[in-house]
Parts: sequence; structure tokens; C-alpha cells
Amino acid sequence: MIQRIEKVNISKKFDLFEEYWKPRIVGELDESYVELVKLKGEFVWHHHEKEDEMFLVVKGELLMKLRDKDIIVKEGEFIIIPKGVEHLPVAKDEVHIMLFEPKSTVNTGNVQNEKTVQGQWT
Amino acid sequence: MIQRIEKVNISKKFDLFEEYWKPRIVGELDESYVELVKLKGEFVWHHHEKEDEMFLVVKGELLMKLRDKDIIVKEGEFIIIPKGVEHLPVAKDEVHIMLFEPKSTVNTGNVQNEKTVQGQWT
Repeated sequence: MIQRIEKVNISKKFDLFEEYWKPRIVGELDESYVELVKLKGEFVWHHHEKEDEMFLVVKGELLMKLRDKDIIVKEGEFIIIPKGVEHLPVAKDEVHIMLFEPKSTVNTGNVQNEKTVQGQWT
Repeated sequence: MIQRIEKVNISKKFDLFEEYWKPRIVGELDESYVELVKLKGEFVWHHHEKEDEMFLVVKGELLMKLRDKDIIVKEGEFIIIPKGVEHLPVAKDEVHIMLFEPKSTVNTGNVQNEKTVQGQWT
């Protein structure tokens, strides 16, 4: 893909889609994608074999459940889930997230179910 | 480095340092660092041979000069500078930036001068 150099307005990109749990790619750096995703409800316990994953909360409040503790991540905060660590993202109310992860990452990691989707450019 | 899983509050991290143009590492994902940096004034024309670099504006307004155009990047916006592209970040007033870049990145790229620094954990 040819990359033109343009700035990206995060809020305007979020206005372009409504669906939950379907990441939209908004940038690429070397072998990683920058993605935006809207979350609502509970995802699925999973881990990523090979990829670290960063969740930056742009709006709302994310509950990140780990096997040994729960972490609440608020607007303006981020959390990095290292490879191999089981996690369950939960959004009681709608949450807007910016994700950073290698291009190889599958959203549901080691699990394959109806929530498994490929990121798509928006 | 052993990575404990903790959330990071971006604003609180910015409160921990004052210096301009000295990136602080606040996270790592695979082969990339997440860094925070305060900018004020004009940097130096440079490019990175091997690394794409992402500038996310957390506070203020960044002028990113390229050889063929100027781009103003505001709070809540980001820009990705692909490898090989000459750029000059300018901050008329103080700007707070979150950077994503490979660990190998040197802040001044192909240029070595008094602004050349290594990122450090904060």
C-alpha cells in the first residue's frame, strides 16, 4: 500500500463506524498497525502467542481482566498486555480504544469464534 | 527488563519531567518503544533510515515540516513519518507528544548534534 503522509484525526475516524469489536486500521508503522475499535460488553478470554498488544483508552472506561487481577483503564491511560498473558477486555458502557499491535495479530488470539475478525482500513 | 502489567496514566507521566526534546520511555511492545516527549522550539531536519515514526499530539499543536508541505497536527491527531522522509518538528508553544517507534530509533535520525539523546525510562 502506498502511504501518503497525512495527519489522522482520531475522533473523526471514530465517527466513521459504529460496530463494536471490529478494529479499523488507521495507520501502519513498520510491522505494526494502529487501529481504532469501539467496545461494548464482554469479549472473550484469550492470549496472543507472539504479540504484545497496547490498549489506549480514548473515551470511556475499560475493565481489563487478567487471571490474577482486574485493572480499570480510563481515558488518557493505556495498558500493554505482553504476549502469552490471558486477558479479557470488558466494557460496561461504550469504550473507544486505540490499539497498537503487530500486523500478524488476530483479535481473539488463540481463540477462534464469532468475534474473530480481520482489521480493515477505514 | 521484567515487565509488570500496570496501566500508565499519560498525563501523570508528563508531570514527572520538564525537559524539552528528551523522550521518556513509558512502555515497550515487541521491538518498539512508547515514549513521551515535550517539545518547544524548532528541532533539526533529519530522517530515519530504517524506522517509521508516529507522533500523537496529546497537548498543544505541532507543526511538522516536510520538504514539500507543512502539516499542523493538533491535540487528538497523529502523523506517521515513514522511513527515509525528511522532517522537521516545530513547536511554537509547548507541545506534548506520544511517540511510537522501533527501539533502534535515534531521535535525530541521520543527524548527530547536541539534540541527540537516548530515550530513558521514566
